[in-house]
This record gives sequence, C-alpha cells and structure tokens, in this order.
Amino acid sequence: MNVKDDRNTQRITRRLTSVQLIVLFYVSAVVISTILVSLPFAHRPGVELSFVDAVFTAVSAVSVTGLTVVSTIDTFNTTGYFISMFILQFGGIGIMTLGTFVWLLFGKKIGFRERQLIMTDQNRSTFSGLVRLMKQILGLILLIEFIGFLILGTYFMKYFPTWQEAYIQGAFASVSATTNAGFDITGSSLVPFAQDYFVQFINITLLILGAIGFPVLIEVKEYLIHRGNFPFRFSLYTKLTTFTFFALVLIGTLFILVFEQGNFFQGKTWHESFFYALFQSVTTRNGGLATMDVSEFNNATLLGISSLMFIGASPSSVGGGIRTTTFAIALLSIYSFAKGKNTIKVFNREIDQQDVIRSFIVIVTAGIICFFAVILLIRFEPFHLMEITFEVASAFGTTGLSMGITSELSTPGKIIIIALMFIGRIGIFSLLFIIRGKEVKDRYQYPKERVIIG
Amino acid sequence: MNVKDDRNTQRITRRLTSVQLIVLFYVSAVVISTILVSLPFAHRPGVELSFVDAVFTAVSAVSVTGLTVVSTIDTFNTTGYFISMFILQFGGIGIMTLGTFVWLLFGKKIGFRERQLIMTDQNRSTFSGLVRLMKQILGLILLIEFIGFLILGTYFMKYFPTWQEAYIQGAFASVSATTNAGFDITGSSLVPFAQDYFVQFINITLLILGAIGFPVLIEVKEYLIHRGNFPFRFSLYTKLTTFTFFALVLIGTLFILVFEQGNFFQGKTWHESFFYALFQSVTTRNGGLATMDVSEFNNATLLGISSLMFIGASPSSVGGGIRTTTFAIALLSIYSFAKGKNTIKVFNREIDQQDVIRSFIVIVTAGIICFFAVILLIRFEPFHLMEITFEVASAFGTTGLSMGITSELSTPGKIIIIALMFIGRIGIFSLLFIIRGKEVKDRYQYPKERVIIG
Ligand SMILES: [K+]
Ligand SMILES: [K+]
Repeated sequence: MNVKDDRNTQRITRRLTSVQLIVLFYVSAVVISTILVSLPFAHRPGVELSFVDAVFTAVSAVSVTGLTVVSTIDTFNTTGYFISMFILQFGGIGIMTLGTFVWLLFGKKIGFRERQLIMTDQNRSTFSGLVRLMKQILGLILLIEFIGFLILGTYFMKYFPTWQEAYIQGAFASVSATTNAGFDITGSSLVPFAQDYFVQFINITLLILGAIGFPVLIEVKEYLIHRGNFPFRFSLYTKLTTFTFFALVLIGTLFILVFEQGNFFQGKTWHESFFYALFQSVTTRNGGLATMDVSEFNNATLLGISSLMFIGASPSSVGGGIRTTTFAIALLSIYSFAKGKNTIKVFNREIDQQDVIRSFIVIVTAGIICFFAVILLIRFEPFHLMEITFEVASAFGTTGLSMGITSELSTPGKIIIIALMFIGRIGIFSLLFIIRGKEVKDRYQYPKERVIIG
Repeated sequence: MNVKDDRNTQRITRRLTSVQLIVLFYVSAVVISTILVSLPFAHRPGVELSFVDAVFTAVSAVSVTGLTVVSTIDTFNTTGYFISMFILQFGGIGIMTLGTFVWLLFGKKIGFRERQLIMTDQNRSTFSGLVRLMKQILGLILLIEFIGFLILGTYFMKYFPTWQEAYIQGAFASVSATTNAGFDITGSSLVPFAQDYFVQFINITLLILGAIGFPVLIEVKEYLIHRGNFPFRFSLYTKLTTFTFFALVLIGTLFILVFEQGNFFQGKTWHESFFYALFQSVTTRNGGLATMDVSEFNNATLLGISSLMFIGASPSSVGGGIRTTTFAIALLSIYSFAKGKNTIKVFNREIDQQDVIRSFIVIVTAGIICFFAVILLIRFEPFHLMEITFEVASAFGTTGLSMGITSELSTPGKIIIIALMFIGRIGIFSLLFIIRGKEVKDRYQYPKERVIIG
C-alpha cells in the first residue's frame, strides 16, 4: 500500500466517522430532549404531553426551529423553561459546531489560514478537533447570551413585577434570540414589544449574531484584535455570506414595506411600519420571533416571506434553509452565464465549479423535498395552500414562524414537519453526505455526449 | 489576425445573427398574428376584440399555449378558425425549427452524426441551413397532421351532421393536437369525448408526436429506414428525452389515479379512471387539451399537475417549460452526488459538466421567474394561490390548461401571462442567450476560493 492509498483510506475513515458523529449527535439529542420535555415535573399541573407532541417539541428545540404544537407558557413550568433553554443551548451550539466541522472535513482545499482561524488542526484526531471547536463556539455564544441577558433582564424590570421574573424572562429571551430558537414564554412572541424599539433592536442584534455564521464571528474577532498590526483579509466565505445576509434583510424590509402599503401598514406611522418590516425581515433569516401576527399580512407578502425563510441563514450558523452562500452562488452563476462569462468572479476571487454544482444541487433538492411536503400536507390536512406553503418553508428554514396551523396538524402532518425541521437543520448538503456513504472511485469511463437543454 | 481569432469572430457573428433571427421571428410572428386575429372578417357578427386580448390570443397561438381570454367558438367564424390553424401551424413549426437550430449553433461539440441527422451543415450559411431544417420539419409535421386529419375527420362523421363539418373539426383537432396548441372549437376541449377512448387515443398519439422532440422523430425515421442494414445507435439526447417523457407520463398517470381515489374517481369504472388519468397526464407534457374540468381535481393533484406542466416537453419540440432533458440531468446529477460519484453516467454515456450547470441554471431561473409571477399575480388579482400557481405553470409550460381564471385576469395580469408564455416558449436557455450578447473572454484571473455550501 503506497502513501496515496493510505491517505485515501484515512480520508474515507474520517468521513465515515464524522457522518456517524452527526447522526449520533442528532439522534441522541432528540431522544434525550424527548425524555426531558416529557418529564412530569417540567410541566404545569394537569398537563399531559402526547408522544408525538413530545418528539415534535424535542426536534423543534434541538433544531432551534421554534414551531410549537403546544403552547410553551401553558405546558411548561419554570423547571421546564430551564430544561428548554438547556436544549436550545445545546442544540444551537451543537449545530454550529457540526456545521463548521462538516465543512472542515468535506470542503476540500481549505487553506491553512481558514483552518487556523477555526482553531482546528488537520493532524489532530477528529474527536479532539471537535471538542476544541465546540469549546470555542460555546465560549463565544455564552458571552453573547450573557450580554444579552444582562441588557434584556435589566430592561425587563420595567415590564415585570419582580427582578427575578425580569431576569428569567431576560435569560430566556436572550438564549431564544441568540440561538434563533424563536420560542417564547410570553405566550405571544414579541407582540407585546411591538412598540418597544429598544427590545426589538437588542433582539435583532442577537438574532443576527446567531445567524450570521460562526466563522464570520471568529474572523471579525481576529480582525478587531489584530487591527492595524498587519493587513487582514476576510475570507470569501465571510464576505459572501455577510453581504448576502444583509442584502436579504434589506430586500425583505423593502418588500414588506411596499407590499403591505395600504394593507397592514394602513394608518401606521412611518417608524412603526419600518420596525414591523425590519423585524419581520430579520426574523425570516432564522429567528422565528415576531412582533405581530404574521397571518395579517396579505398572501403576496406571506409568499415572499416563505421564500426568505426557504433561503434561511448562513451556513455554520444556528440557522437552516438552503443557506445564504448557496443562494448567492446560484444567483452569481446565473448572472455570469447571462453575461456570457465562463467563470464566476466575486470579491476578487473565483468561485470553484464544484461549489456551483453543489449549490444548485442543494437548491433543487430542497425545492423538491419542500414541494413533496406541500403536496402531502395539502392532500391530508384541511388547510389552505398558503398556510401549508408557509409552514413548510418555516420548518425547512427552521425559522419557526407560523400562520397558526402547527398545533392543529394531524399526526402524519406533524411527522412531515418534524422531518422537514430535521432536514432543514442538518442541511441538504450534509443530508446528501449522510446518505451517500463512501466516495466511489470511477473504475471506467464513458465517452461524453452533449444533449439539448431547456 | 490569426486563424483562431478569425474563427472566434465568425462564431460570434453567427450567434448574433441567430439571436436576431429568433427575436425577429417571434416579434414578427406576434405582430402578424395580432393583426390576423383582429381582422373583423375573422370574427362572428358583433364580436369586438380588445387590443390586449388580441395580443394575448396571438401570443397564445404563436407559442401554441392555448390559454384563451376569449372563447374561440364564440369569437371566431370559419375564416377565423383557418387563420388560427395557420398561426398554430406556423408557430409550432417555427418553434421546432428554432429550438433545434439554437441547439445546433450553441451546443458545442456536436458530432458529425447529429448534424447529419438534422440535415444541416456547418459550412452552409445560417439561412440556408435554417430553410432546409424548416422544410424537413414542415414535411414531417404536415404528414402527421394529414394522417390525423384523415382518421379524426372520418371518425367525426359519427358526431357531426355533415361531412364538411366533420372534416373541418377533424382538421382543427389534428392541427391543435399535433402542434400541442390545445385550442378547441367544440367550446369545451375534449370533454364531449370523455367516453370516446378512440378519439382520446388518436389525440394522445398526436400530442406525443408533437411534444417528443423533432430530433427523436428524425432518428426514429432513420432507424426504421436503415433497420437491419447497419448497427444504428440512438443519440443520448433521444434516449434521455424519450425515457424521461414516458416516465413522466407514467408517473403522472399513477399520481392522478392515487390522489383522486375517493375524490374525482369516486364511482367511476377502472377504465374511465385510467383514461381520465392517462389523458390528463399526457396533456401536461404540453397538450393543454382536457377530457374534464381540471378544477374538479383536489389541490394536491392540481399541484402535482402544475409541477408536470412546469417540467414540460422535450427540447426542440413544440412544448415549453424547463424541458425533460433539463429535469432528467438535474435528477441524475443529484443522484450521482448522493451516491458519491464524481461523474454522471447514463445510457453508457457521460454527461458533460457544462450541461449539468446549464440544466440547473435553467431550473433555478425558471423557478425564480415563475415565483415572481405568482407573487405579482396574487398581490393584484382576486384569485386563490392554487389557481394562480396553476395558471403560471400552465403559461410557462405553454400547456394551456386552466382552472378558469384566464379570461377574468386584469390587463396587468394578462401581460404577465403573455410574458410567461413567451419565455416558456423560447425557453430559459435561449432567453439567457438572447440577453447575454457576445461571449466575454476572460482577460484576468482570480485565485479560486472555496466557500461553505448549504
Ligand atoms: K428558529
Ligand atoms: K399547449
């Protein structure tokens, strides 16, 4: 066996191990969470949670989606809140870690710089690298959450009778926002804060920090530390995902503002309209919190929001969906093709052909999966196409917004949504990697032949 | 200027010319058709056609879609029928010719065999090649239509009082089916023939011959002529598009059968159910004729039919949509990726990476265009999301089925549908070629950098 063969074998082993790690993580996280949310002492008196509802709640929490079949406030007591927070925390951080890790393992040709930035080392074993990465992410997320908790908890004394309640609400709100979980213990999301722009601003900041992607946070941290000392170059990933992220927020805000003129915004001031539009736009990136009942929007707006949820957040973040980079690369590729260019250039870098194909595979696969989910749900559930489309996009994007049909779904319907949250969470790319097994070496070749396209 | 530069210049010139040819063809076809359908002597007494309705009718006829804002039977007299038939004929054949032609010009690396099969010669001028190709297609289509006309006309004597009327109906039905136009002069499509399996069988055959793609017909003809004389190999294009075409028909039939159990098929015999399912499945490939009112189907079936219309027919056929080969290559690509394979092999051939990217570009661009059409229509028209989705898929697939909202659309709504029929007709690939102008040579290179995908 020569060196090259040996390396190939090693690579395959490492891949299989990481696939097993991912599956192991999610399955055990869901099992443990199902048990935890089923514990009677976490419930309010007299509450019974059916098995499918417990699984739904567990998957929704582990995947930090935030869709709920039971009202959090009516079902869980304070112990239950802390258990939920623990699951969200664990889910969110696990997701970020695995998302980053999968990329490190499968994304070929990663430079030394990127690897250094994410603090892993190819020569270390899979497991110790994972632990190191997780520690880094845990530290960063806990820091963000702690600052959020201090600000929101202190500020909430204005709203709640005791400081204990204010800080419990502050802790839950901070964790829920930073992990983009979208769970709430007010019973009505952030609707009570529809006029409180400060709470909204803090929430928007936390939502964005959670959804912008872990490598972005690390690079920004590095930049701030070494600023001025030596020339720092942000990676293409960071530039692309950050640009797309904020472009989507901006487009979403403008879209909602324009399409709800004369409808939801009738008779509202400009700053009310602006904050409603901004918050609901940011929340589609992945938050799932809302300052209003989204079903008050008209169908065109709801469809637009559905598409934004489908796109989702940055990869290696707590968010789901097809991911911002995937969407950006597809658009860039179409644009370059329409311009007659053979290569795709952006931010003074060239996009790899492999990444282009992968992006399209992710988008089309996601589209097909969501389409089948809609067809099955519309056949067996008594809801409108709009409500079902919205619910499917929300589950796949692990956003957690709903037009209110979640708790009324039949058991098969709930299982479909559970599956979508799960798939949206691990991502199409990882999903395909999980089912693909080991890479098959081509042993034979056929002649190439062109066909007529579209 | 060296030889290579010279060849490049030539290629660019030829491309520009063909782009101009396509635009010229469609614009003049629409203008002439608009004038023709506006002629007062083509109308029944007292009928007035508004300008937008005339344009709509013209685009629908030139693109052989068959969506109608006015009832053909109430608007046009016998002269009008013949004018319509002429437009359908011209539209259908023009489309086939241009579709094949664009492929010949832009599909690089086409072998000598393919070129020979389609009877064009790279050394001939663009125009004479085009004329030759059109003659071939014209001959073949007229032959098919003539046989259809003889069979249907003769058979229709059973239904109509005079032989003249039977043969006029037969001619119109044959042209409408072969060109997949979906227009009807019965006033209710093929609903009167819902129990007549012979008429349905003939129509299905004609629909398939029109939608299966011109190169397939030519290759089959070659095969039949030279059978046994020497080994004949069908092209990858023919194998792929034919297989996908019939697979979609089969899947569509089964899907309708299963999803309408206990709904539309309640109380119907197995052969009635089978023929309803089969005909409505074939018609989504591009026909647009129907043996029933499609709005009697449930939403899940309608959504399934919408997706089949979106996929559409073979390239280089009279059909629209993203086209069968595009869809097949995308699925094969996803399958290969999930299997861990680096190349896409099918029918003992390898698919070119360029074709993979082009397929995905077509699908995603089409999806985005249709999505925006739905959003605009749902915002400004008073119809359900299901009705609008169906209408958009039908227009983009140039299928012509409708849940009945076409004639009630507002003028902006009609313009959106006109644009969709136009885009669906020329195809996304040609559309992007039309807007792209000349190919830009890369003058500089950037380093490649990988990013995280989905
Ligand atoms: K969420
Ligand atoms: K048609």
